[in-house]
Amino acid sequence: MFNFDYYNPTRILFGTERIADIGKHIPADARVLITYGSGSAKKFGTVDEARAALGNRKIHEFAGIEANPHFDTLMKAVDLVKEKKITFLLAIGGGSVVDGTKFIAAAALYHGDVWEMWSKKLPIKRVMPLGCVMTLPATGSESNGTAVVTHTGLGAKVGYSHPLLFPQFAVLDPRKSYTLPARQVANGVVDAFVHVIEQYLTYPAYGKVQDRFAEGLLLTLIEEGPKALIKSENYNVRATITWSATLALNGLIGVGVPQDWATHRIGHQLTALYNLDHAQTLAVLLPALLHVQRDTKHLKLLQYADRVWNLREGGEESRITAAIDKTRDFFESMGVKTRLSDYGLPESAIDEVMDNLERFNMLPQGEHQDIDAVAARRILSLSY
Amino acid sequence: MFNFDYYNPTRILFGTERIADIGKHIPADARVLITYGSGSAKKFGTVDEARAALGNRKIHEFAGIEANPHFDTLMKAVDLVKEKKITFLLAIGGGSVVDGTKFIAAAALYHGDVWEMWSKKLPIKRVMPLGCVMTLPATGSESNGTAVVTHTGLGAKVGYSHPLLFPQFAVLDPRKSYTLPARQVANGVVDAFVHVIEQYLTYPAYGKVQDRFAEGLLLTLIEEGPKALIKSENYNVRATITWSATLALNGLIGVGVPQDWATHRIGHQLTALYNLDHAQTLAVLLPALLHVQRDTKHLKLLQYADRVWNLREGGEESRITAAIDKTRDFFESMGVKTRLSDYGLPESAIDEVMDNLERFNMLPQGEHQDIDAVAARRILSLSY
Repeated sequence: MFNFDYYNPTRILFGTERIADIGKHIPADARVLITYGSGSAKKFGTVDEARAALGNRKIHEFAGIEANPHFDTLMKAVDLVKEKKITFLLAIGGGSVVDGTKFIAAAALYHGDVWEMWSKKLPIKRVMPLGCVMTLPATGSESNGTAVVTHTGLGAKVGYSHPLLFPQFAVLDPRKSYTLPARQVANGVVDAFVHVIEQYLTYPAYGKVQDRFAEGLLLTLIEEGPKALIKSENYNVRATITWSATLALNGLIGVGVPQDWATHRIGHQLTALYNLDHAQTLAVLLPALLHVQRDTKHLKLLQYADRVWNLREGGEESRITAAIDKTRDFFESMGVKTRLSDYGLPESAIDEVMDNLERFNMLPQGEHQDIDAVAARRILSLSY
Repeated sequence: MFNFDYYNPTRILFGTERIADIGKHIPADARVLITYGSGSAKKFGTVDEARAALGNRKIHEFAGIEANPHFDTLMKAVDLVKEKKITFLLAIGGGSVVDGTKFIAAAALYHGDVWEMWSKKLPIKRVMPLGCVMTLPATGSESNGTAVVTHTGLGAKVGYSHPLLFPQFAVLDPRKSYTLPARQVANGVVDAFVHVIEQYLTYPAYGKVQDRFAEGLLLTLIEEGPKALIKSENYNVRATITWSATLALNGLIGVGVPQDWATHRIGHQLTALYNLDHAQTLAVLLPALLHVQRDTKHLKLLQYADRVWNLREGGEESRITAAIDKTRDFFESMGVKTRLSDYGLPESAIDEVMDNLERFNMLPQGEHQDIDAVAARRILSLSY
């Protein structure tokens, strides 16, 4: 097991009627900016619930943070923060709103070129305090220090991590997901699943507990994910998916073991260039990546086949192929297509993505740093 | 799944050479009291390592915190804290030293009768900041807000929990456990195992991830525990046990599900009265408790038999009996005896423990609060 630091100070407020408790965790004299997305947070009453919980604090709102939040949009919020002398940020939405609000928290107190800081991962010293109310379980952003922001002008989607960016609290009310379209629910399950895989399917490093926890999350998502598509108002199913998504990316399962974020990093380019949903890019790329990397991931793929998919018969290569097929079938069963061609992309997309990966110096990737341009092109070709 | 709060702000510094990093997490002008136990922290150089990492901060030492730390001992440390104007506490040792140091942290800033506060669980408003260096993986005290203190004058062993009592950091260097006697290593594995069981073996509450995580910890302790007895200097085995023990009681696996701490609470009386090792009391009581409570725990016992012990053949009752027998065998294989009579206790011990449970109003216990005096006596009789 490798040396590691684990630090996660976010307070989780999980369950029904928890928004009422946020007032306890925000200073009484705070000037609060509520950030949200396309309007469902407002339409379904969550913004009003938060306003009620905030009592007579001064409140402003910033709406319109889009999926894969845009630098230009977020900089408008930064202006509002300065103009209204905001002292606390409250994000209401899914991962994009929380990610965007983390960016606002960092940018509002940064002196200098904000995009340079973000894209070059320059250090920050202060951020504004933030909390969040999650309405879409998926990204784990509610209890980690990472955010991904898209710069449409540059065609770039760039992640940034800093311990100061952990939300101070996260309200997770599983009922808030009842009103989501099936596509978003399915995307969330696929996103969480792939987060787990990227911290698990590398090579054995004596992370025995980490492996068991990862396998537990995968088994749970396989069991509960499809139930969420059948019936939206099943509290326990939604609660289980919500908590699984948080645990998939709160830093816990990845401590002390190798990680491989190539699927996410290549996928970001597909979103930046073709606007595919984030989870669609993962569902397309992961099975292809596992095929291309099957030799270096051999031992963990066998463990995955055994413990997650109960595949114990036949030769090693056939068990590995079956496990990858099962993974693809799971995504398809969630209604998420697994081929670039399913989304109507031209074959030239492969060249475009390769251009982006090279332009932003994003290669090599992988736990052995062996996903170079040749391997990345093979993955993209197999994804088509 | 029940509503829950999850909050754990302790920073984990895991691995080799991590003591060197504690200086980053203690104020530069701190006046530090290093607390430890019977002297092995000093003898094996850990106190000196910490002193080196603290640089030119003012340092005092308080030695002699015993297993199941005593109120009288700890109050002497409180006097020293006041006399030397200490501002930061650094515990070096196992769960007893950390528990005792939490007590010192609370008592030093409490105005009023300290034992009354502790035993009646009165609220506290401030504690001294503390960090710890763990040398014995077992109790999870390094990243939770709970401590247990023994008052020898009253024959009482009493736990107290408060969010302010989380250590600010915990150094977990698995090599520090190499020098432990086998008995302490075995005790640690048994203690961690029972911590998991007490948050898991109750009734189904749709805690699907919590169950998988708990089962993952149990499977890991069963796999790795015996290896630690064969060869002391096996880094990965010790690292796995260390991390498992932390995760067993850092609050994570118990969120949103019922819990049953009867084994610990009854066991505390056996330690207070007869000075049995804490883990010995658990190894004695747990198999008996599972037998007595087998009807109310029926469904989870079947799940435990299946997923932890691979028991899938035969009738339900025989599978449950086999799972309980396997549990007892595991403790015995770790060298921890599982009968009160093995420790030379007289049969009158049963009456003595029952007297204590009644005198301190510790009944009923259990996830259904159905472990009353009759059930507790049955458990103790079966333990003999």
